Amino acid sequence: MNNMNKVGIIAYGITPFTKEDKKIESVLLKSTKNLFENNPNIDRNDIDAVLVSTNNNSKYLSPILSEMAGIQPKIAHSIESLCNSGTNSIVSAYSYIASGLADMVLVAGAERYDSPGQILEWDNSRGEFKHPIFWASIFAKSYKREYSISDEQLALVSVKNHKQAKENPNAISDKTYTIQDVMNSKKLTEDLRLLDCSRPCTGSASIILVSEEKVKKITDTSVWITGIGQKTTSAGFTKNTSLSSMESTKAAGQSALKMSNKDITNIDVAEIHDAFSVCEPIALESLGFSKLGKGTDMIKELYDTNNFKINPRGGLIGSGHPLGATGIAQTIEITQQLQSNADKRQVDDAKVGLVHNMSAAATSSTVLVLEK
Amino acid sequence: MNNMNKVGIIAYGITPFTKEDKKIESVLLKSTKNLFENNPNIDRNDIDAVLVSTNNNSKYLSPILSEMAGIQPKIAHSIESLCNSGTNSIVSAYSYIASGLADMVLVAGAERYDSPGQILEWDNSRGEFKHPIFWASIFAKSYKREYSISDEQLALVSVKNHKQAKENPNAISDKTYTIQDVMNSKKLTEDLRLLDCSRPCTGSASIILVSEEKVKKITDTSVWITGIGQKTTSAGFTKNTSLSSMESTKAAGQSALKMSNKDITNIDVAEIHDAFSVCEPIALESLGFSKLGKGTDMIKELYDTNNFKINPRGGLIGSGHPLGATGIAQTIEITQQLQSNADKRQVDDAKVGLVHNMSAAATSSTVLVLEK
Repeated sequence: MNNMNKVGIIAYGITPFTKEDKKIESVLLKSTKNLFENNPNIDRNDIDAVLVSTNNNSKYLSPILSEMAGIQPKIAHSIESLCNSGTNSIVSAYSYIASGLADMVLVAGAERYDSPGQILEWDNSRGEFKHPIFWASIFAKSYKREYSISDEQLALVSVKNHKQAKENPNAISDKTYTIQDVMNSKKLTEDLRLLDCSRPCTGSASIILVSEEKVKKITDTSVWITGIGQKTTSAGFTKNTSLSSMESTKAAGQSALKMSNKDITNIDVAEIHDAFSVCEPIALESLGFSKLGKGTDMIKELYDTNNFKINPRGGLIGSGHPLGATGIAQTIEITQQLQSNADKRQVDDAKVGLVHNMSAAATSSTVLVLEK
Repeated sequence: MNNMNKVGIIAYGITPFTKEDKKIESVLLKSTKNLFENNPNIDRNDIDAVLVSTNNNSKYLSPILSEMAGIQPKIAHSIESLCNSGTNSIVSAYSYIASGLADMVLVAGAERYDSPGQILEWDNSRGEFKHPIFWASIFAKSYKREYSISDEQLALVSVKNHKQAKENPNAISDKTYTIQDVMNSKKLTEDLRLLDCSRPCTGSASIILVSEEKVKKITDTSVWITGIGQKTTSAGFTKNTSLSSMESTKAAGQSALKMSNKDITNIDVAEIHDAFSVCEPIALESLGFSKLGKGTDMIKELYDTNNFKINPRGGLIGSGHPLGATGIAQTIEITQQLQSNADKRQVDDAKVGLVHNMSAAATSSTVLVLEK
């Protein structure tokens, strides 16, 4: 732990992921209310910081949430880094606690289905192709060619994650699909179909992080953040050195594992950023879960053996992808897994978990290692 | 310092504050370029985090700035808390360094003259009165009544700060005004005139913070952040317990002074958030620089003796107020003062400085204490 203070996760709240047309303030408050309802022992006066993760254009959301939730924090601001906002916010919360500036931090993420973070406005190199599906398609084409992967092999990512989402009561999807269903879904680009894509949605997730000293006074079921890795390689995906691996994910994964004194074989359960089906095998390879080109083989084996190790809540494809809430929802899932509190999604004997989140064609990534 | 790692400011860059209609990305890059031009010894590879402070709606600005400036940071995200964004970002940078997650952090703030942060959309209690001038007017009315202060006494804030801004080459204003000029300027509300107000503008400011260990390798003129205080009381100004004092400023000031083991009499020079003239005397009182109701007397004495102690760069009224850049520009001014590098604005023998920033009718405040 590099002599840092330990930081624990002691409480969480979440909303169902939907297509609801509600104001961002209401969406945001809902998961924080859920958190306090589930944890009546937490004193709002102990909360030193409120960090809001979102791509919404509304301003001053942290003081607004604080006022609505009855909190008067010292530190209050919003954090944005597209899809990676939630995990950036959790790392920021970690730093406030480890630095001694805060003992208890609420991180609340929320997004509406029509989030402006879903359109990539800045990268003129892509001309009119501003929707993320265009970079994902280029990844898919490159990955399939380099490792001789079929569309059906990628489709299995969606099949597996929808199956797992069926056990997640907050997921936007409760349907299961076959490989043929995915192949028959609307072809959006040459290489990707509708069911290869995560869906924009409305949702919120909140989490409370605390210092080690404070944890002991509140709970004995805390989960600890023991590894953090982050890397930004660029903003535009045309700067990526490879389109069939994720360099920022590789760097972030190595840093997080090193900090926690773990290697990838120690990870029992992981949340992987599968905004599009092709992302999951590439991320598994870049993190070292599988050899290069063998990510889809690993996914098939997990599917065949009904093993929920990767994306137990159904990933972004099955759960939905409310950008600012996603990294927090991923972290909540791993927390539940390590607390043996994941119901039908539970992975046996999960002691060490990993969260992988990223933005914009993996131009930036965050990896967290969590332990019970 | 509560056993925290020390954090130093080793470099800064700034742009003139103008009414230019430039893209936010260009505005942002300009002060970072200025920083690197002035500090060619800084190795971009050493930068672990890039934090962008802005109210602009553009997303992913930290990776965009990083790519344009040739940086590949670990941590990269934007921070928003209205006018208080810049100082929130500096405190976040401090926490990343003090926690050990980063050794060197670039904080870059930027805003355009048409920032969406200038309209307060969330507080329905104010009906159609969404521009900040409406809360400032209520403050002015309350403050003038409670302490028998005249419009002319408030006008002197503007006279003083415009005079001081004339010595600031980056200020939007280079004109001086008399009390009568302020009184004769356009009456915008019953209690405030045009020259009582800071102006929205386009501008950018960047700063680099580093760990103590790293400081020694780069410079011997670092300025140290030794005190930090922050407080959020609410989001809506109708929740303020007083309209002629600033409760969040009082709390933040007390925390910052305590952390730095200083009292207010030790402060040689200060940047105070004077979005409107009435803010300066109220903030001086809430920070303890003067007794209640005596802030304008202090301002008159400083003006009469040509003492630049308060808002040497001209404050927000004289310099302009590019929201996300303001807190960083304030911190740069105090850094220059403590380095005896403030030219005609220099306050004699300045050893300890203070930065006060706030948002939305002082519903949240940040106070920093800096030492050389």
